[in-house]
Parts: sequence; C-alpha cells; structure tokens
Amino acid sequence: MLVEGRHFLPGADPGALGHKALAVNLSDLAAMGAAPRWALLAISLPAVEEAWLAAFSGGFFALAERYGVDLVGGDTTRSQLITIVVTAMGEVPAGLALFRAGAKPGDDIWVSGELGAAALALVHPEIADAARRLHRPEPRVELGERLRGLAHAAIDVSDGLAGDLKHILERSGVSATVSYAQVPRAASFRKLGNPELEKDCVLSGGDDYELLFTAAADRRGDLEGLSRELGMPLARIGSITPGEPKLSVLDEGGRPLPYRGGFDHFGEMSAAK
Amino acid sequence: MLVEGRHFLPGADPGALGHKALAVNLSDLAAMGAAPRWALLAISLPAVEEAWLAAFSGGFFALAERYGVDLVGGDTTRSQLITIVVTAMGEVPAGLALFRAGAKPGDDIWVSGELGAAALALVHPEIADAARRLHRPEPRVELGERLRGLAHAAIDVSDGLAGDLKHILERSGVSATVSYAQVPRAASFRKLGNPELEKDCVLSGGDDYELLFTAAADRRGDLEGLSRELGMPLARIGSITPGEPKLSVLDEGGRPLPYRGGFDHFGEMSAAK
Repeated sequence: MLVEGRHFLPGADPGALGHKALAVNLSDLAAMGAAPRWALLAISLPAVEEAWLAAFSGGFFALAERYGVDLVGGDTTRSQLITIVVTAMGEVPAGLALFRAGAKPGDDIWVSGELGAAALALVHPEIADAARRLHRPEPRVELGERLRGLAHAAIDVSDGLAGDLKHILERSGVSATVSYAQVPRAASFRKLGNPELEKDCVLSGGDDYELLFTAAADRRGDLEGLSRELGMPLARIGSITPGEPKLSVLDEGGRPLPYRGGFDHFGEMSAAK
Repeated sequence: MLVEGRHFLPGADPGALGHKALAVNLSDLAAMGAAPRWALLAISLPAVEEAWLAAFSGGFFALAERYGVDLVGGDTTRSQLITIVVTAMGEVPAGLALFRAGAKPGDDIWVSGELGAAALALVHPEIADAARRLHRPEPRVELGERLRGLAHAAIDVSDGLAGDLKHILERSGVSATVSYAQVPRAASFRKLGNPELEKDCVLSGGDDYELLFTAAADRRGDLEGLSRELGMPLARIGSITPGEPKLSVLDEGGRPLPYRGGFDHFGEMSAAK
C-alpha cells in the first residue's frame, strides 16, 4: 500500500511509481521462492489525468511483461490522496515455499546485490545510482525461484538489513552474528566518505529489495555457482547461532557495533502518543 | 477500495465497515459462482485506535468465519484518510465460472432478494431496514455457487440494476427488456408513497449486492426450486433479446419507462472538467 505523502511525494514520477508498486510485491513473492503470475491493482486518484495514468501504466506493465505477470483485476476510485494497492500472486511447488521461520543454528546468512543505496538516495537524491535504486528497485525474481530447496529461510530487505533479519530470527527462534565488513554496499559510499551515514544506510536503511536468506554451510559451493550463473553477487555476511532472537553486528576487530533497529510502520504514531 | 469521505463518512461505524469491506468482495466472487476461500486486507489509518480496530476486525472476521474465509496477508500503513482495500480469492470448478458475457437471446433475466433499500437509506437513513441493507449487505454466496451450470451470465448489483444489467448486455452483445412491475423491491417503499424516489432507487440505486443473472427459459423450474430450497426470493424480471446492447424498461402498460443510468465512478470528475 503506497500512500501519497507517506511513501512518495506529491509530484513523484508516475512511471517509477507504477514500476515500484509492482516491484515491491514481486520482491515479496521472490522472498518466498514463488514465480509471479497475477496481480490486482487498486488505485485512488484525485482526478483522471491521462498523462499521469499513461506513465504509471507504462512503468507497471513494462515490469509485469518482463515477468509474465497478468493484471487480472482491481479497482479505481477517487480520493484526495493517491493511494496504490497492488496484490500479487504467484506459484511455488508444494513444500518448497521459503518462509522466515526456517533458519537453523549453523546456517550461513547471505544477502544478494548490495545494500544502502535506496536509503542513501533519501539523503542524497542527486546521486543517480542511488536514486534509481530507490525509485526503480529490481525484484530478485530469478534468484528467489532458484533458492527453492537451497535456502532455509528468506525475506526481502524492505525495512533494512537489521530489521528484516530480526524478523527471521524471531520466527525461527534463533540468534545471529553479522560481520559488518562483509555486508555488500553501494559503490557510492566509497566516494562519499561518511562512515556514520554509510553504516546507517547499510544496516538499517530500507527499500533495497535484495534477498536476505540463510542456508546450510555445506551449500556454499551451490550458492557461489548460482551467483556466477545469474551474474548476481551473493555475499555471505554472518551466521545463525542458537539462542534467543538477538542480532549482533561486529566490526572488523570483532567488537559489537551499535546499529539502529528496523523501521516500525507505526513508530511515529507510538512516539506521538 | 473504500475511501473515507467517498464511500463512507468520517465517523462511520467501524464494525459495519469491516463487514462491508469483505461483503462486497464476497459478492463479486458469488457473481462468478466462486466459493470464497482467502482474503487480503490493506488498510491505512491516521492513527492506531484500539477500539476502532477491534470493532472493524469484529465485523470483518464475523463474516469471514461465516464463510470459512482465511485472512492470508495484507498491509497496514498510515494516511490522513482511512482507506480499506480487500482482495478476496475463491475457487470454482474449471469451466463453471459465471461471467458477464454469457447472456443469450431468449434467456430470462432474474434477480435475487429485493432492490432499492441501500439507495433509500442514503435519502432516509432513519429507516432501519434500509440502513441495515446499506451498511451490512449480505453477499449471496450460497446462491452464487448454486448458479453454476444454471445461469448463463451473472453480475452483482453494486452500481444499480440498470447499470449492472448494461454491463451484461455490453459483454454479451445482446439487448434486454425489463418489466418494472416485476422488479422486487424493499417493503419500505410501500409505506413511503414516493413513486419517483422508488423508481430511482429500484432501477438505478447501487449497493444492494443482490445477484442479477440470466438463464435459459427451460430452467425456470430449477430456479423456482432453488429459491424454495435456499429460502431466497428469485424474481424473473425480463428477458434477453437479440440486438445491440440496449436496456428497455417497460411500465405495466408496456410503455417505455425512462430511468437514470448506472453509476460512473469518475462521472463527477468528468462533469467537473
């Protein structure tokens, strides 16, 4: 559910909105190992603007066609605020769906691609690479399907690495240690020279839509092969340990690194009470 | 997609909203002959109000449980306007789904229950029977499933009898004649003695969520039997004829009766241009 003024600014590029509204749903399917099949779109608009609708549809359908997703229903209505709700459905063979709950002690923790760029774009919208990651995220559809039978648990990084990994820990009843230096990050951070911002974006920034998953240590070779085959970097960033759900992030010297937790959708509200 | 200020007033009864948000989706499934199975709920709220959420959930889940519908996903976020989007999924045996496109010349036109009460409640909110129909519509789930293999085309009456019947005519490429006197209507109209308002509500009022369908004339006995079995009035109100999509409503003397067309969701916008 994308709401004007909360998830995007009034005047946001409608083509990017159409792309992202579907992309974040395909990312959720990928995180379960599902092949996307169908989508429904409910949209409220203050007025019918042909140019806006054409651009929005262009972004939506270009991505839908790329993955063979059919728009099979939805709703349109009028509202003061643009609100976009996409529901996507996919298929996965029985018994092979990936969940948050499957992580086991001894598992490696892996993440695809690189993290932090989308959050960086909120601070530095002039960095084009970062802005593209924020506005035109690429769902890891092929990777998700290939992780069937390979990963023990998976989630997509929408709320930030720390926050989303905690979802896996809570559902799986395990603990985790992540080595900060191993977490792959956008190249833009190197030029920027702002280690505090970098850490915040890489560990706690949302909207990257990479896949974060765990797999048995004896699958390292399989995953390195898959990475080469897909041309998709897969980084091993830590490991699952027994114990109460707790995430420790360590610096290069093995010292605990403080980090900001994941995003709480109603956090501002709670704080305002 | 139900938007505060457009589909319901600020301060609307949250229990009724929870019921209606799901009911209108189950009604769409019923109109296709599908058995409801799963629902997703996306909701935006200006703030977390426990009492509001409890009442909304009460209305939603009471109806969901009645039909064995599982809530399998969704989203929550914050917005200035309450916006509710329910996506419902159901199952129907292959080849037996009902569509708008199947009406054939010679078919009878049937409608379940009675029409006009929901629209009447907009003008006379003090009439309790009518208000209940508007705020707590009953999806015709059992009827929809039983119409498989019996009806040729079906739709639910959400935009008004005239507007929804036109959808069938356009998709089926046929014409229709409806006898106004045969259209079943809420008992409240008798006491009211306002024939103009009655006609407007019965022919053009939306939100009734009855099923409107066509069936071959040789199925009259089956449908009368089904009506008795379900305890659900089914009225034969007209017939499908060959020709360009056109709806003629006739009065008791067989004269054409003028009526207002169906509801156009963006009509006000077009008019404002």
